Amino acid sequence: MNDVMSTILNHRSIRHFEDKALSTEQIREIVSCAQAASTSSFIQAYSIIGVKDVEKKKKLAELAGNQEYVLKNGHFFIFCADLHRHSFIGENKEENINQSIESTEKFMVALIDAALAAQNTAIAAESMGLGICYIGGIRNKLEEVKELLKTPERVIPLFGMAVGYPSKLTDQKPRLPMNHIYHEDEYEQDKGVYASQLEEYDEVISSYYTKRTNGKRKDRWTDQITNMLNKPTRMYMKEFIEKNKMNLK
Amino acid sequence: MNDVMSTILNHRSIRHFEDKALSTEQIREIVSCAQAASTSSFIQAYSIIGVKDVEKKKKLAELAGNQEYVLKNGHFFIFCADLHRHSFIGENKEENINQSIESTEKFMVALIDAALAAQNTAIAAESMGLGICYIGGIRNKLEEVKELLKTPERVIPLFGMAVGYPSKLTDQKPRLPMNHIYHEDEYEQDKGVYASQLEEYDEVISSYYTKRTNGKRKDRWTDQITNMLNKPTRMYMKEFIEKNKMNLK
Repeated sequence: MNDVMSTILNHRSIRHFEDKALSTEQIREIVSCAQAASTSSFIQAYSIIGVKDVEKKKKLAELAGNQEYVLKNGHFFIFCADLHRHSFIGENKEENINQSIESTEKFMVALIDAALAAQNTAIAAESMGLGICYIGGIRNKLEEVKELLKTPERVIPLFGMAVGYPSKLTDQKPRLPMNHIYHEDEYEQDKGVYASQLEEYDEVISSYYTKRTNGKRKDRWTDQITNMLNKPTRMYMKEFIEKNKMNLK
Repeated sequence: MNDVMSTILNHRSIRHFEDKALSTEQIREIVSCAQAASTSSFIQAYSIIGVKDVEKKKKLAELAGNQEYVLKNGHFFIFCADLHRHSFIGENKEENINQSIESTEKFMVALIDAALAAQNTAIAAESMGLGICYIGGIRNKLEEVKELLKTPERVIPLFGMAVGYPSKLTDQKPRLPMNHIYHEDEYEQDKGVYASQLEEYDEVISSYYTKRTNGKRKDRWTDQITNMLNKPTRMYMKEFIEKNKMNLK
């Protein structure tokens, strides 16, 4: 086990930060790491917006569902799928590349590019002793987020990341059994095995909550999942994406 | 600069590997790291398929556009967006969660989850002295990939990753200028600045190729981009995704 793997395995989401901003140098180092990630066919279809302005952070915290740690952190990053620069290049060269740019395939490429850069950001920050928390909540109100950050067409803000000096550590939640996530040569074909892996995991999660709350909570993972998915959220997403001239053809 | 950041910054895609398979222990360690990545609201909406079977690898190499390193490596991973387990849980509990599962929002969540796990995989492997290469080429023919790996509905194979002991190192390609990828407080509003950043980068890439090829190639990045995007690819993607009961509502 080397230092890199220890850093990765030690990850937990941090939601309480000291009142201490990251330095410009720290931000530059972190963004260099983000940029070092792989990118599909060298397309570099993402952008990162660092938010320092306190009023903007307040507004973002509110839009993300009153998440205090969107305001109170060392720095706040927003990762965007970005095909704007490609579209800009196409227009300047008078090349018609819109069919590509508006395809589901390229939407996927941009999402994946942004996520790879984001995970490098997370690991780099954690290696510096900082904590991080991904913020999907900015997708609650993308129209407002877009206005706040003045993102042009073909840029979709995907998620935020609060980074800072941890002031309160959190526990690590146990993940799905490895043999449920990881298959060899083909996807698990035995429904009995598949179901029993999920049951096994329900027990793990239930004991995790029992221990943590002195028996007050006993949630099973599969119940959490159905409770969450029973309520469809952000159903405006397709419309928003298409309005911003990306996807979904 | 710590070891973690050096590992991240030292990344380059490796396409030539020694004929030496990863051990089961190495694979387990790498997959543990993948699982340690953040996951949106604890949904864990991805799966990884490790391919060892030589016939399957040959077929995958062919489907990916005759990429030899899909066959010749230490291990081959395929990362999938996976809402199958959630759908399976919903059916077992007789809960109707299909509206959620078939939303664009949840498709994005699954893609991002898979990509975060993949980037942890890449960094973990590189920290062990291994090299990696992402393989988007499996998206050329997803119908065949799906058949080969027997993935059920609501599982979308997104990309592969060849991992192994490097037998030939490659150069690192310079990335876009940091101030083009990274904005503060709002997206760059000045089109002149935006255009000049791209021009600056064209010079960087052009010198990179000139040096590497003794002047035979002088490609500019913006030309590479328009050449690539002039030819729309994988335009069947939306249809494939919908046929597999994910997305795009």
